[in-house]
Amino acid sequence: MHKHISEQYDLELSQIRDTLMEMAGLVEVQVNNACTSLVNHDMELAEEVRDVESRLNQFEVDLDDRCVSIIAKRQPTAGDLRAIVSVMKVITDLERIGDEADRIAKMALELADSEKPEHQYAEFRAIHANVMKMLKRTLDAFARLDVESALRVFEDDENIDRAYNKIVRQSIETMQSNPQEVERSVSLMWAARALERIGDHAKNISEYVIYQVKGHDVRHSDVAGEMLE
Amino acid sequence: MHKHISEQYDLELSQIRDTLMEMAGLVEVQVNNACTSLVNHDMELAEEVRDVESRLNQFEVDLDDRCVSIIAKRQPTAGDLRAIVSVMKVITDLERIGDEADRIAKMALELADSEKPEHQYAEFRAIHANVMKMLKRTLDAFARLDVESALRVFEDDENIDRAYNKIVRQSIETMQSNPQEVERSVSLMWAARALERIGDHAKNISEYVIYQVKGHDVRHSDVAGEMLE
Repeated sequence: MHKHISEQYDLELSQIRDTLMEMAGLVEVQVNNACTSLVNHDMELAEEVRDVESRLNQFEVDLDDRCVSIIAKRQPTAGDLRAIVSVMKVITDLERIGDEADRIAKMALELADSEKPEHQYAEFRAIHANVMKMLKRTLDAFARLDVESALRVFEDDENIDRAYNKIVRQSIETMQSNPQEVERSVSLMWAARALERIGDHAKNISEYVIYQVKGHDVRHSDVAGEMLE
Repeated sequence: MHKHISEQYDLELSQIRDTLMEMAGLVEVQVNNACTSLVNHDMELAEEVRDVESRLNQFEVDLDDRCVSIIAKRQPTAGDLRAIVSVMKVITDLERIGDEADRIAKMALELADSEKPEHQYAEFRAIHANVMKMLKRTLDAFARLDVESALRVFEDDENIDRAYNKIVRQSIETMQSNPQEVERSVSLMWAARALERIGDHAKNISEYVIYQVKGHDVRHSDVAGEMLE
């Protein structure tokens, strides 16, 4: 009987994790499309991102529901419980990454009306590429419960923060020297801010990977730094 | 025996909720102090907010840990499980409100060096007052599991979004007509954005109140709108 319950639990948990990875795949596509629509002034693609957003919300509600059910029915303890709690936390971060992609698509729509700027969004493209790499690493770490990859994500996040601060400084200079550029620069700053937030959420997800595997909470501690040394 | 377990569960859950309300009280103080430090150019108060931030992180880690323990030990089902899952979700939102307060304090430090602007932060003061009211209503709703108050929070959030959009429009106009104001306006916009995000988190918390009481998920649905009618 006990073995039966445990097998059933493992099966259900792995189905939940499969759906979560499906959601994560869709989140990656959303972030990528939102950024691509921005740099290419592609309004159609931006609208598509905005339409797909509701599917992510549906994933979130459905997955949360299944997590609560599995806890109620299977009453997992220790490691099994940590696994399901991690999944619940990751769902929230994925949904919020989706919200940020939606915000980027909104900014893409605002920018699409104007001419492309001289710099051709060079810095934004750079952050975009880094965020995609970081997201991929994060999700691979989560799928394979790979602590080492998860720890690397912390370094990725620092790079993104640096690139983001550079965009803000550049935008401020542009606005100071050219008042016609104010609106465009503000939209670009908001979009860059959204990418910076996506980096934060990816970092949160990596923390849950470590929590799930190692069983201790690395949030707000220097454990991650020490583990990397 | 069963009664004993259940009483023990109720006791532990109510202790967790007490600690959560303590955390919530500290979050309210942080938001209030951060905004006050900004409009008064009070660097000392802004630094204090930044120092206290780590206490909120400690609350989060401790509370999450106690929630996982209570699930593992007491294996709650149905309503009891919903209660603890709501608490876990609320912890995350409270901690993120704390992060936003910290961002406002950072902006306060950047603004404190310059002269106070002509408008004396009038719009920002207005959003600040509204956010405090909204937070109070949200936390009261959570403490008393009051669905009607929770639903009112959705309306508060719309007001805050409107006021936020007004600040952004005003800031863009200021920057266009006065390049010397760019840096200050950007800091003020970031701070206003942080308040707008706090509104979103308060709305999330209200959704969990409804979820806990009514047992259904109102996120991303029109249920809230229908309930209000």
